[in-house]
Amino acid sequence: MANQLLKGKKGIIFGALDEKSIAWITAIRCFDEGAQLVLTNAPVALRMGEINKLAEQVQAPVIPCDVSNNEDVDKLIDQAMAHFGGGFDFILHSIGMSLNVRKGKHYTEIDYGFNAKTLDISSMSLHRVLASCMKKDAINDWGSVVALTYIAAQRVFPDYNEMADAKSLLESVARSFGYHYGVKKHVRVNTISQSPTRTTAGSGVKGFDGFISYAEKMSPLGNASAADCANYCVAMFSDLTRMVTMQNLFHDGGFSFTGVTQAVIEQMEK
Amino acid sequence: MANQLLKGKKGIIFGALDEKSIAWITAIRCFDEGAQLVLTNAPVALRMGEINKLAEQVQAPVIPCDVSNNEDVDKLIDQAMAHFGGGFDFILHSIGMSLNVRKGKHYTEIDYGFNAKTLDISSMSLHRVLASCMKKDAINDWGSVVALTYIAAQRVFPDYNEMADAKSLLESVARSFGYHYGVKKHVRVNTISQSPTRTTAGSGVKGFDGFISYAEKMSPLGNASAADCANYCVAMFSDLTRMVTMQNLFHDGGFSFTGVTQAVIEQMEK
Amino acid sequence: MANQLLKGKKGIIFGALDEKSIAWITAIRCFDEGAQLVLTNAPVALRMGEINKLAEQVQAPVIPCDVSNNEDVDKLIDQAMAHFGGGFDFILHSIGMSLNVRKGKHYTEIDYGFNAKTLDISSMSLHRVLASCMKKDAINDWGSVVALTYIAAQRVFPDYNEMADAKSLLESVARSFGYHYGVKKHVRVNTISQSPTRTTAGSGVKGFDGFISYAEKMSPLGNASAADCANYCVAMFSDLTRMVTMQNLFHDGGFSFTGVTQAVIEQMEK
Amino acid sequence: MANQLLKGKKGIIFGALDEKSIAWITAIRCFDEGAQLVLTNAPVALRMGEINKLAEQVQAPVIPCDVSNNEDVDKLIDQAMAHFGGGFDFILHSIGMSLNVRKGKHYTEIDYGFNAKTLDISSMSLHRVLASCMKKDAINDWGSVVALTYIAAQRVFPDYNEMADAKSLLESVARSFGYHYGVKKHVRVNTISQSPTRTTAGSGVKGFDGFISYAEKMSPLGNASAADCANYCVAMFSDLTRMVTMQNLFHDGGFSFTGVTQAVIEQMEK
Repeated sequence: MANQLLKGKKGIIFGALDEKSIAWITAIRCFDEGAQLVLTNAPVALRMGEINKLAEQVQAPVIPCDVSNNEDVDKLIDQAMAHFGGGFDFILHSIGMSLNVRKGKHYTEIDYGFNAKTLDISSMSLHRVLASCMKKDAINDWGSVVALTYIAAQRVFPDYNEMADAKSLLESVARSFGYHYGVKKHVRVNTISQSPTRTTAGSGVKGFDGFISYAEKMSPLGNASAADCANYCVAMFSDLTRMVTMQNLFHDGGFSFTGVTQAVIEQMEK
Repeated sequence: MANQLLKGKKGIIFGALDEKSIAWITAIRCFDEGAQLVLTNAPVALRMGEINKLAEQVQAPVIPCDVSNNEDVDKLIDQAMAHFGGGFDFILHSIGMSLNVRKGKHYTEIDYGFNAKTLDISSMSLHRVLASCMKKDAINDWGSVVALTYIAAQRVFPDYNEMADAKSLLESVARSFGYHYGVKKHVRVNTISQSPTRTTAGSGVKGFDGFISYAEKMSPLGNASAADCANYCVAMFSDLTRMVTMQNLFHDGGFSFTGVTQAVIEQMEK
Repeated sequence: MANQLLKGKKGIIFGALDEKSIAWITAIRCFDEGAQLVLTNAPVALRMGEINKLAEQVQAPVIPCDVSNNEDVDKLIDQAMAHFGGGFDFILHSIGMSLNVRKGKHYTEIDYGFNAKTLDISSMSLHRVLASCMKKDAINDWGSVVALTYIAAQRVFPDYNEMADAKSLLESVARSFGYHYGVKKHVRVNTISQSPTRTTAGSGVKGFDGFISYAEKMSPLGNASAADCANYCVAMFSDLTRMVTMQNLFHDGGFSFTGVTQAVIEQMEK
Repeated sequence: MANQLLKGKKGIIFGALDEKSIAWITAIRCFDEGAQLVLTNAPVALRMGEINKLAEQVQAPVIPCDVSNNEDVDKLIDQAMAHFGGGFDFILHSIGMSLNVRKGKHYTEIDYGFNAKTLDISSMSLHRVLASCMKKDAINDWGSVVALTYIAAQRVFPDYNEMADAKSLLESVARSFGYHYGVKKHVRVNTISQSPTRTTAGSGVKGFDGFISYAEKMSPLGNASAADCANYCVAMFSDLTRMVTMQNLFHDGGFSFTGVTQAVIEQMEK
C-alpha cells in the first residue's frame, strides 16, 4: 500500500531505536508515501548504531538531539531546516522514558528527582520541540504533529507507574500547544493512543506479557500493531485529516470503549 | 448516620420494587434524613404489593404511574403536588426495562418495536416526567433530579444489550433537560452511574454473576452497594451539591477509571 | 488530491441530497479515490431528482430506501450486493431528521410520537442497516462504517433540540454494534463528529447563523467544511485506519477541546 | 446548614490564604460540621499572618509546609498525627502556583526551569503528601482526599497557560494514587473541578474578568462560588460518598456540559 499520500511533504521522526520501534516503521511508511525525512534520537540511543540502517533505507540524515536540552532542540530544528531548505510539514514524537520504572520504584514511593526527569523527557520535550519550531517558523502552514501516548493517561494501569502521569501531561501539552499553533499557522497537534506494543521500550515494563494478552482479549479487533500505527500516522500527516487537531485518538482495536468482552468474562469464570 | 440533611425537603421516588431495590433503600435513607416522600411505580410492579411495606415505613402514599403515558405522568405530578401542598424538591428516576433482553434477543438481532418500547420506558420517561414538572412548575427552585444509569452508556458490555443505548439516551436527556431546567428554575439534573448491583432487576441480565465478580475485581474499592448508592443520592438531593448539574457521576469504587487491576492480571495469567 | 486510496473498494453512501451535502461530496471523493459506489436515500428525498446528477458523475445506481423499514433496508442490501457481485467494504451513514424541530416544538415540550420517529430514523437506522448487513454477511472483513454526528451528543446546544439525544443514541449504537461486528468480522464502526456545516439540512436549524459563527470563532482552525469531512471519510474507509473502531472522532478544527478563544473573549467584552 | 456530617472526623486543609480562599471557607464549613482540623500553607504564605484569624476560628494549629520539600511534608504529617493523636480522615489540597504566569511568559515561550517548579508545586505536591501519608499510615480507612482543579485540564483556556498542563498532571496523580490507596486502605482520592472563582490567587490571571463573565454566561446555574465549593467538599469528605474515587468532579453550574447558551449566542450576534 503506497499511494504517494505524503508526496512533497517533509518531516522529522523522533524515537526510532530499532526495527521494532513504531517510529522506525513509521519512517519507512512515510518514505514509501513520498515524504522526505530527518531522523533524530537521543545521543545515547544513537550510539547503538542501529539507526544508520534505517537512515540509509529512508535516505535521511540522523541528527542527535537531547530533547531535555533547549540548545540541542534548537540545533536540531536549524539543521533540519537547512537540510530541507526551509520549513517542514510533520513531526512524530515517539519519546518516553521513566527513570522510576527503570530503578524499580513503586508508584507510591517514586523519587521526585527522577520523576522531574521523566516528565521533562517524556512530556515537556514536546513543548520544547514545538516552541523551537514556532520561534523559527519551522512548520509549514497546515503542518501536522503527532505524539504517541497510552490510555494509562485516562485510566489506571498500575504497572505503567509514573508514565501514566507523564502521558497525561503530554496530552495536555499537545492540546495547549495545538491551540496556539493552530491559531497562528493552522498547524495541528494530536496524540495517538496506541495499543500496548511489543517494542524494545515497551517490553521493559513489569507485567507486560500478562498485560498485552489482557489488552488483546479486551480489544474487539485485537491489539493494533506497530505497522498499523505507522499507517495511522501516515493518515494523520496527510491532507486527509487537516481539520483534526487537539485530539487524543485511540488506535487500539476498540479497547478504549470496550467495558468487557466475552473472552475476558470466560477467563474470569475459570 | 442520619443528620436531617433533607429536613423540609419533599421528593418522588420512582422504581422501588422490593427491598433489594436501590430506590427502596434510597427512600428509607431520605426519610431518615427528614424528607417527605411520594412513591411510584408501574401499575404492574405495584401489583406485587411489596411496596406497601415501604410506604408504611416511610409514611408515603403510593401513586401508580405508567411512565410511557403522558396522562399518567401528569396525574402523578398533580397528585404529588396535592399531597405535598405545592411543589417538591427532588426526584429519583430508577427505571429501566428491556423487552429485547427479556425476550432473549441478541443485540445484533433486536426487534425494533420492542426497542422503541425500551427507549420510551427507560429513557424518554425521564423527559416525560421533567416536561410535566416544568409545565406544572412542580419542582422548587434549586431542586435536584437524579436518574440511575450504568457505564455501558460509555463502553460496551455485550450482555447489557440495548440497555446500553437506552442509558446513553437517558444521560443525554438528563443533560439536555438539565440545561433548560437549570436556566429556568435552577433545577439540577444528574445521572449516577452505579456499580452493577444485585437487585431483582439486575439479576435478570445474562452472565450477571461472571460480570459482577469482574467488576468487583476491577474496582479498587470493590463494587458500590445499593446502600452506598442511597447515601450518594442523599448527598445529591441535599444542598451540599447545589452547583452540580448535567453530570454523569460514577459511583463505582473506581471502576470507571481503572484500566486493569493486579487482581485481573493475575486471573488472566491462569 | 487523488491517490487511488480506495481502489478496489465498494461502498454505500446514505444521505446525498444535493451538492452541498457532506454525503454528496464524500461520494465524489470516494469515486475519485477509486471506489465503486451505490447511492441511497429516502424515496421522498429522491423525488427531488438532484441525486441523478451525482449518480451519473460517480457511475453509481440509486436505490431508494426508507431506513425506518426493515424490508426496505434488506432490499437495499440485497440489491447493493447484486450490483457489486458480492460483499462491500464501507458505508457512510449521513441521516438525521427531527420532526419536533420541523414542527417548531421546544425541547421541553416535544411530542413523544414525533420523538420516537426521530430516534428511529436518525439513530436506530444505523442499527437496522448493520443488522441487515450482518445477517446477509454483506460487509467484507475489515470493512469500515462511518456515521456522521455532532458534539451536541456530549454538550448542550439548546437549539439542537432532540437531535442531541438522537446523536447520543446513534453514537451508542455505533459503539455497541462496532463491538459485535468487530469481534465477528473485523468490521469497524466509528462516528465522525463534524463542525456545523452549511448544508441544506443544517441550515434549517433555528439560530444556525449565530451558532456557526460562534463555532468558527471557537475553533483554532475554523470550522471544518463538507469537503474536509469528505477527506476524513476517505481516510476512515481506507486501510490506513484499520484498527480504529468504536470511536467518536471530532472533526472540527479543535472546537471540541477549546474552552474559550481569544476571539470569543473579545466578543464577550463588547 | 450544619448537620454534624463530619463529626469525629479529622482533616488537614492546605492552601487557606485569606478569607476569599476556597480552602479558608472549606475549613470553616468542616469545623461547623464537627471536624477537627490542622491548617497548613507555604511558609511565605503564612508570613502574611491572615491565617491566624482562621486558626482561632476553627481551633486548629497552623503548621508551615513547603510542599516541594519531602522533609517538610513528612514533618507536617508527623505533627498532624501527633496533634490528632493518630490518623486522620481527610485532606483538602488547594495548591497551585505558576511561575511562568507570574513572570508574564506566554505559553509558547515558557521557561522550563520555572515550569518544572510549577509542576512540582501544583501537581507533584499531591503525590508527595499522599506518599508521606501512606508511608506513615496516616489516613484512616475510607479516608477522603480532594484536590481542587480546573477544566483547563480538559479544554484549552489560553490565558490559563501552563497551569492547564499542571492541572492535567494533578488529576492524573489523583487517579493513579487513588488506585493504590484505594486498594490498600480504601482511601479515596478525587478532584473537584471548580468554576473560576474570584480568590486572591485566581484574580491574578490575565483576562480573568472577561473570562469569569463568559463562564457565568455559559453556566446554566451560573458560576459556583467558593461557599458552594466548600459545601461540595463537605459532601466528599463525609461518609455519603464513600464509593466515589478516582473521579474528576465538575462543580461548575453545568459549564462543562454546555456547548453554548442562549446568552452567549446573543452576545455573539452583537
